[in-house]
Amino acid sequence: MPGRSSSEENTVFIGVKPPMNYVLAVITLFHDNAKLVSIKARGQAISRAVDVAEIVRNRFMSDVKVKGIVTGTEQLTGEEGNKFSVSTIDISLTKE
Amino acid sequence: MPGRSSSEENTVFIGVKPPMNYVLAVITLFHDNAKLVSIKARGQAISRAVDVAEIVRNRFMSDVKVKGIVTGTEQLTGEEGNKFSVSTIDISLTKE
Repeated sequence: MPGRSSSEENTVFIGVKPPMNYVLAVITLFHDNAKLVSIKARGQAISRAVDVAEIVRNRFMSDVKVKGIVTGTEQLTGEEGNKFSVSTIDISLTKE
Repeated sequence: MPGRSSSEENTVFIGVKPPMNYVLAVITLFHDNAKLVSIKARGQAISRAVDVAEIVRNRFMSDVKVKGIVTGTEQLTGEEGNKFSVSTIDISLTKE
């Protein structure tokens, strides 16, 4: 069975589920030999993304560090053609 | 009148008010010659902190950059002595 490539992007998109669902997803990726896991969120899920990263590091994997955090803005179009902006976050975690 | 020291810490704490209140606070600090403004938030206000940083940069001050973003966890004690954790964020903005 081929191993996971270290260059492969491993991303967990944060939605409306409880944080522990996403924590488990991140831990599973690291246990599957991912070197870097990207936690991405938009809008109000951004707070939950930070919760997920903190819970992974503080409660489960002390050898995981924050490599970098990037924020941004996306332009979205609503159902009625209205345009609006939403903030984004990308938290990169690495296992040392 | 003494000028603002560049080493003085300029922090805007994000609460429950509309984002534009905090955007105005950040812009005011930069117009008062602050070189670095720190936007801090806890819990669900974290999403709003990212909104504030993005709005400042995209709509008002294109010469403001994100210098760094640090996340953390604080232990708080509730009214009944119960302890709980809350995530924190600190977004450092600099004017070039």
